[in-house]
Amino acid sequence: MLYFSCDYAEGCHPSVLKALSETNLVSTPGYGEDDFCRSAKEKIKKVIDCPNADIYFLVGGTQTNQFVIDSMLGNFDGVVAADTGHVAAHEAGAIEYSGHKVITIPGHDGKIHAEELKSYLRDFYADDNHEHMVNPGMVYISYPTEYGTIYSKNELETIRMVCQEYDLPLFIDGARLGYGLAAATDMTYADIAALSDVFYIGGTKVGAMFGEAVVFTKGNTPKHVITQIKQHGALLAKGRLLGVQFDALFTDDLYMKISQNAIDTAARIKTYLKENGFKFFLDSPTNQIFIVMCNKALESFSKEVAYGFWEKYDEDHTVIRIATAWSTENQAVDQLLKILEKYKNNC
Amino acid sequence: MLYFSCDYAEGCHPSVLKALSETNLVSTPGYGEDDFCRSAKEKIKKVIDCPNADIYFLVGGTQTNQFVIDSMLGNFDGVVAADTGHVAAHEAGAIEYSGHKVITIPGHDGKIHAEELKSYLRDFYADDNHEHMVNPGMVYISYPTEYGTIYSKNELETIRMVCQEYDLPLFIDGARLGYGLAAATDMTYADIAALSDVFYIGGTKVGAMFGEAVVFTKGNTPKHVITQIKQHGALLAKGRLLGVQFDALFTDDLYMKISQNAIDTAARIKTYLKENGFKFFLDSPTNQIFIVMCNKALESFSKEVAYGFWEKYDEDHTVIRIATAWSTENQAVDQLLKILEKYKNNC
Amino acid sequence: MLYFSCDYAEGCHPSVLKALSETNLVSTPGYGEDDFCRSAKEKIKKVIDCPNADIYFLVGGTQTNQFVIDSMLGNFDGVVAADTGHVAAHEAGAIEYSGHKVITIPGHDGKIHAEELKSYLRDFYADDNHEHMVNPGMVYISYPTEYGTIYSKNELETIRMVCQEYDLPLFIDGARLGYGLAAATDMTYADIAALSDVFYIGGTKVGAMFGEAVVFTKGNTPKHVITQIKQHGALLAKGRLLGVQFDALFTDDLYMKISQNAIDTAARIKTYLKENGFKFFLDSPTNQIFIVMCNKALESFSKEVAYGFWEKYDEDHTVIRIATAWSTENQAVDQLLKILEKYKNNC
Amino acid sequence: MLYFSCDYAEGCHPSVLKALSETNLVSTPGYGEDDFCRSAKEKIKKVIDCPNADIYFLVGGTQTNQFVIDSMLGNFDGVVAADTGHVAAHEAGAIEYSGHKVITIPGHDGKIHAEELKSYLRDFYADDNHEHMVNPGMVYISYPTEYGTIYSKNELETIRMVCQEYDLPLFIDGARLGYGLAAATDMTYADIAALSDVFYIGGTKVGAMFGEAVVFTKGNTPKHVITQIKQHGALLAKGRLLGVQFDALFTDDLYMKISQNAIDTAARIKTYLKENGFKFFLDSPTNQIFIVMCNKALESFSKEVAYGFWEKYDEDHTVIRIATAWSTENQAVDQLLKILEKYKNNC
Repeated sequence: MLYFSCDYAEGCHPSVLKALSETNLVSTPGYGEDDFCRSAKEKIKKVIDCPNADIYFLVGGTQTNQFVIDSMLGNFDGVVAADTGHVAAHEAGAIEYSGHKVITIPGHDGKIHAEELKSYLRDFYADDNHEHMVNPGMVYISYPTEYGTIYSKNELETIRMVCQEYDLPLFIDGARLGYGLAAATDMTYADIAALSDVFYIGGTKVGAMFGEAVVFTKGNTPKHVITQIKQHGALLAKGRLLGVQFDALFTDDLYMKISQNAIDTAARIKTYLKENGFKFFLDSPTNQIFIVMCNKALESFSKEVAYGFWEKYDEDHTVIRIATAWSTENQAVDQLLKILEKYKNNC
Repeated sequence: MLYFSCDYAEGCHPSVLKALSETNLVSTPGYGEDDFCRSAKEKIKKVIDCPNADIYFLVGGTQTNQFVIDSMLGNFDGVVAADTGHVAAHEAGAIEYSGHKVITIPGHDGKIHAEELKSYLRDFYADDNHEHMVNPGMVYISYPTEYGTIYSKNELETIRMVCQEYDLPLFIDGARLGYGLAAATDMTYADIAALSDVFYIGGTKVGAMFGEAVVFTKGNTPKHVITQIKQHGALLAKGRLLGVQFDALFTDDLYMKISQNAIDTAARIKTYLKENGFKFFLDSPTNQIFIVMCNKALESFSKEVAYGFWEKYDEDHTVIRIATAWSTENQAVDQLLKILEKYKNNC
Repeated sequence: MLYFSCDYAEGCHPSVLKALSETNLVSTPGYGEDDFCRSAKEKIKKVIDCPNADIYFLVGGTQTNQFVIDSMLGNFDGVVAADTGHVAAHEAGAIEYSGHKVITIPGHDGKIHAEELKSYLRDFYADDNHEHMVNPGMVYISYPTEYGTIYSKNELETIRMVCQEYDLPLFIDGARLGYGLAAATDMTYADIAALSDVFYIGGTKVGAMFGEAVVFTKGNTPKHVITQIKQHGALLAKGRLLGVQFDALFTDDLYMKISQNAIDTAARIKTYLKENGFKFFLDSPTNQIFIVMCNKALESFSKEVAYGFWEKYDEDHTVIRIATAWSTENQAVDQLLKILEKYKNNC
Repeated sequence: MLYFSCDYAEGCHPSVLKALSETNLVSTPGYGEDDFCRSAKEKIKKVIDCPNADIYFLVGGTQTNQFVIDSMLGNFDGVVAADTGHVAAHEAGAIEYSGHKVITIPGHDGKIHAEELKSYLRDFYADDNHEHMVNPGMVYISYPTEYGTIYSKNELETIRMVCQEYDLPLFIDGARLGYGLAAATDMTYADIAALSDVFYIGGTKVGAMFGEAVVFTKGNTPKHVITQIKQHGALLAKGRLLGVQFDALFTDDLYMKISQNAIDTAARIKTYLKENGFKFFLDSPTNQIFIVMCNKALESFSKEVAYGFWEKYDEDHTVIRIATAWSTENQAVDQLLKILEKYKNNC
């Protein structure tokens, strides 16, 4: 079975595994108070060009979103997100569990539009009853989005301007940040840091075994932050495991190099699909490819390739996701393309 | 100033006040363990033709919605509601505060459509990822809705069938129940009880000083219900105040009689508006009337009449709400119609 | 049956009822935006000598405690209270429901000791692991306490000094504030306001039908306070009902006069009990009297007098509470003393 | 620096690391739906002799406690624990954050006494006001306790009988389960499973990199369990990492063998301490040793040995914890004993 179902089907990059192995029996203090964490944080601060950034390592994405949103909002606040945003749709209500409404505005191929955000905010404050409504306390976007799309620098700047006008922090969910930056032509780590109030660098989907690095960029770390992380069940006893991994990922630009692999292998697949008349559900520049296939073809295709079910397209067709990853080998792409040959005139 | 802004601008019906006055210095146990509450419950059970109903009195609507939804759902559950539903839009996130997502489906003049509910539920269970999504654990509707519209008996039966197919309790928010039933041609108290799993009879907006009577109709009272009410800050020390009021409202059909007054006075106003070419925003059979007026006219109108701002219609027009109540006098209607004369050809 | 079980067994003081009756059909805006509330707030500000106080009216005690504590604390904070404090023991977990731990220190006849508070705080900060523990974010005391005892001015000043040393707001639960101040020899409304950061004036137990007036005394009103009140299900639609009641209670010193009645009638009972050899469980200067009676005597006593069960004393004896109120008549005291005659040599 | 501060200062047992390395590039489905998890669960079910056990793997201890307690309790429930229990004292309020009170009863060297538990429960139900109090919904104990002590089989059976009498599930926190069972003379895995309703097998502190295996033993898995795990931010994307680790730990009795190492090395240290007149704070049979040392000695001792600060003993003395682990080598023990020589007549 070929695996193109997601970008977290394997363990971790060999360099990360090597670092974990080599440091395995070193004794360190717990809870992130170790030198590996310190080193990783320094490397990240340098690459994002944000010397005053305050960085914490957590284990997974939903946990990170819950912690960031809950720790930065007041009780009365909700978080504004695209209706397709991960926090709105696929986190089992983790945000509401922590007491906060996810206020949705339309997602366009996963992205929010600055003018629609502004329009929502303007209408909210114009409404005499707004004290009876959940207060917008933060804007959440994902980069890249759940549909693999990315904001241009100009789009992000415009969103940030709206946020600033309404005094709202901007949170960028970077579960797949590497894939976004590798695909972007006009964005850097430093831009992400400059344009957000808080963001995270996803490890789980980009070469780490697990782990996400939360970065507070504007001197805005929540109070009693360790207590809050612990309270969310998110304080890893052996915090050093996260430090070791991010230290490896941010040594010799590894994080970006392996992200590039996902983009390159995805590009090969997209080129093939385009040249062979496959139907795209939407156009995505990163490692997630969404195509429409007929259910009949999927019956046999699914026996050879593990892909992601996305949604029903119509009675006879389904949207599927093909995802490459840091770990995707060109040989596997070859195999995939060979299998796809069978379906090219078939749907 | 004429008050047509809402149905809770006055205190309570004189009969309710009389009952409160006459019982004022009687000593009773607290927390609803008194004979007034017992008597009121018996009267309600009779009128809703549901001898096994279990009834609790709470103080206000948002409190009641939060208590009912939170006490009947598991952590993993959300409540399905129209996007215009009170719990979705105007309760300051009280439902999310209690940990539950309000899952919205489209509201049509305030009402949900059974087939859209079914479609949402079918898609939910068909989605392989549904364990990563908030589980639909209850359906919430309001009767009448926030737009003054009411479901026909047939519509309610169809919604109930969908609920039963998916094993979901149906909760009917009856903050204005009296006005709905007084306006309905095919619905009775007993129908509401039979078609719902839990509902409440609104007192605050229908003749009581305050108070809502929650009715669990199917032997489905939540466990440790008093503890849960207390935990929500909703257990009134002098519970007898609620018993006394509902006892008065359910003596000699008072609740329905005073509800009818709101319907009758609203009918007079609607007739006038129709005959004089005012523009309706939507058609509502109950005590809430939504019309579109030009902003210029509202400038002077607002100096004479207190109405409800609803929403911006376009740059030059606004949707306003005119609400009658149990307390509306025909003389006040006369005055209103006289004032409206000035605007009839004006917008 | 004679009622001495609690101070909320009757409705409200006749003057309060009169005010509610006279204003019953006046139309006002909802949610506390009315002139009655404004007037009541002005009167309270004057009597507490705190012109910048910010005042909100809520319905009941548990609701008020939950709102005040939750709106003033961060997620990471708990509230420090006596282990016998109402929030610790008898609010069905309403505080924990809102996410906050009640951190208990010993209660001494209901009161906390400043030095024990200080010792707890010093140890907390001296503990290297304190980030793994709930942060003390507020100190809660009740005045009078759940045992009817009151702090001296000096005791309160010392507690306040500890709070200030550790930068903790002091919250005084005044569910029975009138009874405390009427009994105190050295405390005034103004002292309560000056020594607390937030407190509330209890109406439910002191002459109102229902209602508590929360006073933020130090320019420290929580953000989006109306949204937060609503979110807790605590925003009364007809807020004017609370304004009317507190306006009446704070006209012509009514609140204090009727509080004095409870103290005077309690004094008569205590004098009798002392002179006749009844055993006191503790000494309380306010309206709650705790005595130890033998279970055998209680069997017949309970048929004539409604009293409060407090706790088991030993196998054969029980602690009971006899409470007077704003409404207690001397005639009822006469009857009680006559009944007690039967038990004076009997336990 | 010698590390005896805790049992989570190193990475993982070499066999665990080997298993992670060898499976690193295998592609699997996410979220625990993989063969490694299935295999690990089968091995655990066999060793605990509980074929119908339902097992889930989580990342850390606080997270696990929060998930287990919150998913098994109703809103109205609290969890009964020793006042020194981890959930009561050192989890940053994670339980209260999820809405539940930790109801404390006295800990005796970390253990609760069955008769005190029973006494609390009897008094609770005898109290007429118990509906106004948090309902006891579960009993939590740790095995071994936070003080390294263990319950005898007879003690556990008696606690279980009390739980059954009051229909309360018994939850055993086994963060250090291996160390407890290795030290016990009369307890087995199967006893833990039989005597509890839910327990967890700690990996983080016993040879895994991270991970805890939650076992529901009585067909009592909470509803929508995956949704609830996700909602707590506790569903690891690469769930296989946990399966691989527990599979290794439960192959060839590894978990118990490495636990035994901690017990054996601790025994050597305790023998030395006893023979040399060191003062024990309490007697513990497992891997945690609590001794009292004078602050003067600790000044220099702390430069050579990392130990755990426990609590102030008196002005001049401190309780410290010396912990061995699965990873403790006899050579390190030799070094420790040599260092301790300097202090043996010194405090």
